[in-house]
This record gives sequence, C-alpha cells and structure tokens, in this order.
Amino acid sequence: MNLVLLFPEDLVAPDLARLSGRRLAHVREIHGAGVGDDLAVGLLGGPMGRGRVLRLDEERLDLALTLDQAPPPKLPLTLVIAVPRPKVLNRVLAAAASLGAARIVLLNAWKVEKAYWSSPRMQPENLREQMILGLEQARDTVLPDLRLARLFRPFVEDELPDLLQGGTGLLAHPGTGEAAPKVLVPPITLAIGPEGGWIEAEVQSLLRAGLKPLDLGPRILRTETALAALVGRLF
Amino acid sequence: MNLVLLFPEDLVAPDLARLSGRRLAHVREIHGAGVGDDLAVGLLGGPMGRGRVLRLDEERLDLALTLDQAPPPKLPLTLVIAVPRPKVLNRVLAAAASLGAARIVLLNAWKVEKAYWSSPRMQPENLREQMILGLEQARDTVLPDLRLARLFRPFVEDELPDLLQGGTGLLAHPGTGEAAPKVLVPPITLAIGPEGGWIEAEVQSLLRAGLKPLDLGPRILRTETALAALVGRLF
Repeated sequence: MNLVLLFPEDLVAPDLARLSGRRLAHVREIHGAGVGDDLAVGLLGGPMGRGRVLRLDEERLDLALTLDQAPPPKLPLTLVIAVPRPKVLNRVLAAAASLGAARIVLLNAWKVEKAYWSSPRMQPENLREQMILGLEQARDTVLPDLRLARLFRPFVEDELPDLLQGGTGLLAHPGTGEAAPKVLVPPITLAIGPEGGWIEAEVQSLLRAGLKPLDLGPRILRTETALAALVGRLF
Repeated sequence: MNLVLLFPEDLVAPDLARLSGRRLAHVREIHGAGVGDDLAVGLLGGPMGRGRVLRLDEERLDLALTLDQAPPPKLPLTLVIAVPRPKVLNRVLAAAASLGAARIVLLNAWKVEKAYWSSPRMQPENLREQMILGLEQARDTVLPDLRLARLFRPFVEDELPDLLQGGTGLLAHPGTGEAAPKVLVPPITLAIGPEGGWIEAEVQSLLRAGLKPLDLGPRILRTETALAALVGRLF
C-alpha cells in the first residue's frame, strides 16, 4: 500500500480522515508510522496528497489531509480480458488497475468455465476491492471503468467496434507472427484470451470487429505477466 | 503448465519418460489427458517436442518422446533484483524465468530485511522449483543462470562492471524523469530495487558501476509487474 486510499465516508471533516480496519492495521503493522508522520493519501476519484498522523492506536487512525496533487493520468487503454480462473482473477485485476488502464472489460469466451462467472471473486465488491488494491499499490485514486460482458457475441459485434472508433485495437494471439503496428493511434484496445486461448471462431469475430493480431513470441505468459509486458511495449 | 518439463532421471529410455508426483497429478487433473494424447514436453536444458501418453493412471504417466524442437531463445537480459519479501519471491522468480531472462542475480540492499535471506523460500531447491514453474508456463527448457549476491558492494563494484561490458545497464528508479535510451545495445542488465526503493548511496554505487537511470513514470508497480512491463518495453 503506497497510498492510503480514502473514501467519502472516511472524512469526518473536509481535511480530516478517520480510519479503522484493514488500512489502520496496515499503517500500524507495515508502515510502522507514528504520530506526526506524513502518509501518502488520496481521495477515491479525487486528488492526492499527504495525511499527517494525528492519532494512531488500536482503535483508529486520524489523518490531517493536504490534498493538492492530481492523480497520475490514466493510460488511454481498454483491456478486454477473457475471465481468468478465480485464483488468477484478483492478481489480474490489481495488476491492470496498477498499470493505469482506463477501462477493463471482463469477457466470456469458449474456454472460460461457466463456474468462473459464479465465483464469489466475481462479485462486484471483490472486483472493486482488487482494483482498489491496485490503485493503492500504484498511487492512483481513479478506479478503471469495469464492465462485465457475459455474452461474447453481442459485446464483440455490437459494442467493441464503437470502442475501437478512432483508435487501435489489438488481439494478443500467439502464432500469427505479427509484430505491433509501428504507429499506434490511441485509444488502444487490447484483448487477452483465456488460458488455452481463443477458439478460431472467436479470433475471427474479434478480427472482424477491427482488432489487429499481435504475436507475443514463442513464450506463453501468465495473464498478468502478458498484460504488463504488453502495456510496457505499447506505452 | 504448458510444457511438461522432464529431468534426466525421468528417462527410462532415450525416448520414454516415466512420471509421478506433481506432474502426474497435473496432467491427470488439469490437462485431463488420456492415452494416445500428445503433450508438449521438453528436456531440462535440452530440446522440446511431444510426448505421447502411453499409460496414465494413479501411479504413473508414461510418455513416448519426440524431441525435435529447440527451446525459444533466451533474452540477452540479466535481471539484478533486490531480494523481495518471501511472499513475493516465488512470483518474481517464476515471472522472470517465464519472460526468458538469461541470468538472474538476487542482490542484497539496505531495505532488504535480513530475515528474507534466511527464509525457506531462499533455499536453492525452492528457487530452482520456482524457475522451473516459470519454464513450464512459458514453454522453455533452459533455466536462467541464478546467482545470489549477499553483499551489495562487492557485487556492484567488482562484478557488475564486467556484466555490463559491451552492453547496456539500466537502473529502474522513479523520479529521475529519464526515458529508456533510444538505442539499447544488448546484452541488457536491468536492476530493480526493493520495496521502498534503493537508498541514495546504493543508487550512486549502481550509477558508478555503469547503470543508466530509467524512470518508470509516476506509478509504483509491484516487482513482478514492473519486471514484465520493463521487459515488454525493452525487447
């Protein structure tokens, strides 16, 4: 947690935050902060700055706020990610948020098991929590716009073309031998398949919607590793 | 596991492997393979190819081997990584191996807690196991050359300059405002700091050894995310 993210309900006055629970425990145990110390803080969806510790004990953490910085700009990036295994989902969402993606779409695919959609990890509260962990890691305050697309075809045929308008769409897909286009006009939309990959019909649908294939080379990377490597390459 | 990695002791004949334990369980439970199926296999440090399932039951997996492919080339990359927290170490090593780094140096630093070095996860068997998991993920057979540098100064002053000979050294360090050099002469050596960063004296030592600072932007990324983003950017 490189930033203590504050929510509207934490503010007992415009310049005073009162925290308990996970964030209190983290500041006490990991930061080892004391009264008088400054912590990096940010208001969810708003400015960032410093919080001076006024009180820190088992019950609560009081912070005097100076919020005078803008959060880092989002990348003009939409990630379209086939729903990963629940075990992997948390890491992928936190990584995507920490990297600064403006929008994340969790998409169904043939090789996405139905059970993934009904996992407790796919509940909105958990999805939000994981993105918040990513923001706290990266020092950002702005949640990515998250969408769940439970039906592949309607999303790809009806909505994806609009997302691509005026920008560049890329389909991470091994074996095509295609390097990234030399000129990448933002916004960029990047689609990342499930374990085991997209099936051929899905690839064809995604290409028809306007995505260009992008070969990542012979190595098969975990979703969150591939994601970070692609963001590093494209931005 | 996108590749079943074979060790010399698995070979009961030059073209026959016999497996049990973790790999047997994985093939039975995750792959759901059956007799007659082909699995992607590779011999540690050697060629890759296919293994046809001859027998698969609770006791063992027998594979008839056709090893006719070279493993993917390593990246001409040395990663110098300040020892991460044990919880993070496994993921970092597996990610580094999966990305194809030729060499990994785990380095001490001021903000590396002494306890990290004595963690069971720093035992050679675990370090090797994590890199093997990375190879199985990426479909590679060649372990990175792993070195442990328990003393910062002797490594940085005496050994690092030799590693940099004829190539490019980069120091991931926030706040310098330095973009990656336009021309990167391989081999590339990339140093990644501990949580909390390098201290100033360490930064100066690393710069004196020949590393160039590289600013990753305002976002603070987890070690394995930063690693992947940097590899994506540099290669």
